[in-house]
Amino acid sequence: MDFDLAIIGGGPAGYNAAEKAAENGLQTILFEKKYLGGVCLNEGCIPTKTLLYSSKIYDSIKGADKYGISVKGETTADYPQIIKRKDKVVQKLTGGVSYKLSTAGVTVIKDTATIEGEKGDLIQISAAGKTYQVKYLLICTGSETVIPPIKGLSDIPYWTSKEALESTELPKSIAIIGGGVIGIEFASVFNSMGVQVHVIEMMPEILGAMDKETSAMLRSDYAKKGVKFYMNTKVTEVSKKGVTVEKDGKSQTIEAEKVLVSVGRRPVTKGLGLESLNIVMKGNGVAVNQYMQTSHPNVYAAGDITGFSLLAHTAIREGEVAIHHIVGIDDPMSYKAIPGVVYTNPEIAGVGKTEEELTAAGEPFRVLKLPMAHSGRFIAENETGSGLCKIIVNPNDQIIGCHMLGNPVSEIILVAGIAIENGDTVEEFRKHVYPHPTVGEILHEVLFS
Amino acid sequence: MDFDLAIIGGGPAGYNAAEKAAENGLQTILFEKKYLGGVCLNEGCIPTKTLLYSSKIYDSIKGADKYGISVKGETTADYPQIIKRKDKVVQKLTGGVSYKLSTAGVTVIKDTATIEGEKGDLIQISAAGKTYQVKYLLICTGSETVIPPIKGLSDIPYWTSKEALESTELPKSIAIIGGGVIGIEFASVFNSMGVQVHVIEMMPEILGAMDKETSAMLRSDYAKKGVKFYMNTKVTEVSKKGVTVEKDGKSQTIEAEKVLVSVGRRPVTKGLGLESLNIVMKGNGVAVNQYMQTSHPNVYAAGDITGFSLLAHTAIREGEVAIHHIVGIDDPMSYKAIPGVVYTNPEIAGVGKTEEELTAAGEPFRVLKLPMAHSGRFIAENETGSGLCKIIVNPNDQIIGCHMLGNPVSEIILVAGIAIENGDTVEEFRKHVYPHPTVGEILHEVLFS
Repeated sequence: MDFDLAIIGGGPAGYNAAEKAAENGLQTILFEKKYLGGVCLNEGCIPTKTLLYSSKIYDSIKGADKYGISVKGETTADYPQIIKRKDKVVQKLTGGVSYKLSTAGVTVIKDTATIEGEKGDLIQISAAGKTYQVKYLLICTGSETVIPPIKGLSDIPYWTSKEALESTELPKSIAIIGGGVIGIEFASVFNSMGVQVHVIEMMPEILGAMDKETSAMLRSDYAKKGVKFYMNTKVTEVSKKGVTVEKDGKSQTIEAEKVLVSVGRRPVTKGLGLESLNIVMKGNGVAVNQYMQTSHPNVYAAGDITGFSLLAHTAIREGEVAIHHIVGIDDPMSYKAIPGVVYTNPEIAGVGKTEEELTAAGEPFRVLKLPMAHSGRFIAENETGSGLCKIIVNPNDQIIGCHMLGNPVSEIILVAGIAIENGDTVEEFRKHVYPHPTVGEILHEVLFS
Repeated sequence: MDFDLAIIGGGPAGYNAAEKAAENGLQTILFEKKYLGGVCLNEGCIPTKTLLYSSKIYDSIKGADKYGISVKGETTADYPQIIKRKDKVVQKLTGGVSYKLSTAGVTVIKDTATIEGEKGDLIQISAAGKTYQVKYLLICTGSETVIPPIKGLSDIPYWTSKEALESTELPKSIAIIGGGVIGIEFASVFNSMGVQVHVIEMMPEILGAMDKETSAMLRSDYAKKGVKFYMNTKVTEVSKKGVTVEKDGKSQTIEAEKVLVSVGRRPVTKGLGLESLNIVMKGNGVAVNQYMQTSHPNVYAAGDITGFSLLAHTAIREGEVAIHHIVGIDDPMSYKAIPGVVYTNPEIAGVGKTEEELTAAGEPFRVLKLPMAHSGRFIAENETGSGLCKIIVNPNDQIIGCHMLGNPVSEIILVAGIAIENGDTVEEFRKHVYPHPTVGEILHEVLFS
């Protein structure tokens, strides 16, 4: 045996699991075909958040007079500089991952790995002209952008999130196909930077499975800022001129210099050699149990490859669960309290059940709700921007969902997540002492609404 | 009987308790001699946070080029406008308190109340020429600024936090006597606004009982920004010229246009008529049990009048505990997880035990510690400013303290507070799924450090 554990894929699931495995005494090898940190660090979460933060600073300068700060003269966004800074942040963080793995003693092979089946009870993996024999395998190959079969799309130099993050030039106008989290975060950046943004979404509301009320509030905020939304609208054709769409049988062409495709992502499962181990699939992804074990007892999968959730923090936790199971710690995965965040300005965050899914399932629930303006700090720090806090309670008075709009809910939502994970009742949850004044206090206030 | 419950003092303890009491069916009267919202809303937490936020925007404009945003021309802080906005925020929030109390059906008397003793089992309270008979009394008269007996102080127009918040003019230089939370928050505002700030502190470190390591880091940050700190230094005299101080037997005069006194606050207990009910005192404040009951079974006290904690959120929770006890809900007060926050830029937040207090008590502990730079979001949003996350663990591996430096730790610290309150172990705490990327994730990372 060459290694106790092989990990395929160096994204959040893979690199965190590798570090943890090594710390737990497993001889670990990690294969990464492109770059450590995966999509999240290199062309997803981190680069977008860097651009979003530059946008936020730009926005706050535009609105500084509301807080008594007077800016005379011109303020400009130096977009090439913003992209350069984004690259620097990514380099710093991927460098950190590399350093941590090397410190932990993980062997890293920067090449495509292929599963070649088993010899005895060892799994065979080939990469860079060599074959490795390992006892355990953790697959974390992530996901890739779905390119829908739209007429004309392949004939134009369209962007996915990857190209949108690389370009140092801003288009004058952009048509974003797909109003999910990725599409809306880019809409936010481009809108701040002065680009005319069109968002085209097939569903009646943006942001997919997020709470509809806060999503609609955010959409209304961005509509006021000049983003044009086309809801219940289908793209029929794309050309150099722009995007032709159809709604209620009527067709129109939205002119745009650039097209960004963000209709979704799907697990990367092809070409890995999964069939050599007869790994059972589920939907688009690899089937796993609550310990992230696949149909093969020594093969685990974590992250986007499982085909649901598709969030970096789910991936990190799943990787942790897998390693714990390998080293004999009973630590099953729970999906009850996985937060979802949209890093717009203001932010949206949600965790647990939504009103929509409870209504669809016919389950009874009660909603506690307050505008963010009930928080003193929110008033002190927000002259503009809406805010809402909503808690969903089941008939046993347990907290089962929480949905918020307003800054900085990305950092606050975990508190509700913990309550949901612990099965806390309203009475238990309201005993926590929040620092005053904080925006987070709204979670206490709303319990009495 | 005129009312079930009288509340003296309309600050955070009083107004929140009044609303809750009324919601629980108690006929409630609230006496406030000055203004609803108390010191916190009118001359404390909220107005300072409003100024601090304007300062933060001003700071972020000064550093915007680090994020690719170029500001040409002059940026100025319009201080009269900043103060005007602060007044508007305060008005909005005190208006909200007034509205909530009236909606809840609380009778509000804007006059000084005096406790006049008992008749039968009813407590007598006089105010505005009338006497009220009530079954229960909740005293929340808060605290007042301590003015130390410094030679020459009464001969100059010195500021306390109150006057500092009212002035629409900035001095060129200010000497702040007392480097506790109030002094340091003002140092932060004045430093951002371009005032030369001197902070004089008798102790070896700023920020009183907060964690020493993060306090020292913050001090070092502000020293770099130009604040002059005089530690282990005693003020011997104040004059129009400035402040004469002594350190290690050596004397010097710090020239400053203005002096701000912020050495502490003490409970307001005089002139209330507490003696007419033989209320037992403890230290400077009123003695209470875990239900906030004083030595008189029908008299409760909450907030700064108890003479410890002196935090608005402690007060709010104590008021809630008192009302719960009156209406028969068993909900004792716990001080295990009261967070403390300093709203500087960056912020400091702490909850539970400090290394210093555990060392002094001879209790064994273990420290888990990471720089904030281990958080991807922190890197994406902080080109400058230090950051640290520290968790303190007892020999049973339970989390007993957490101390953080970096934005926005004020909104994150509650997560550690919940762990401390629940007695969570490291293993239990690390199962929470934090959204990625957030600064809060550092609380997960640090558990593996």
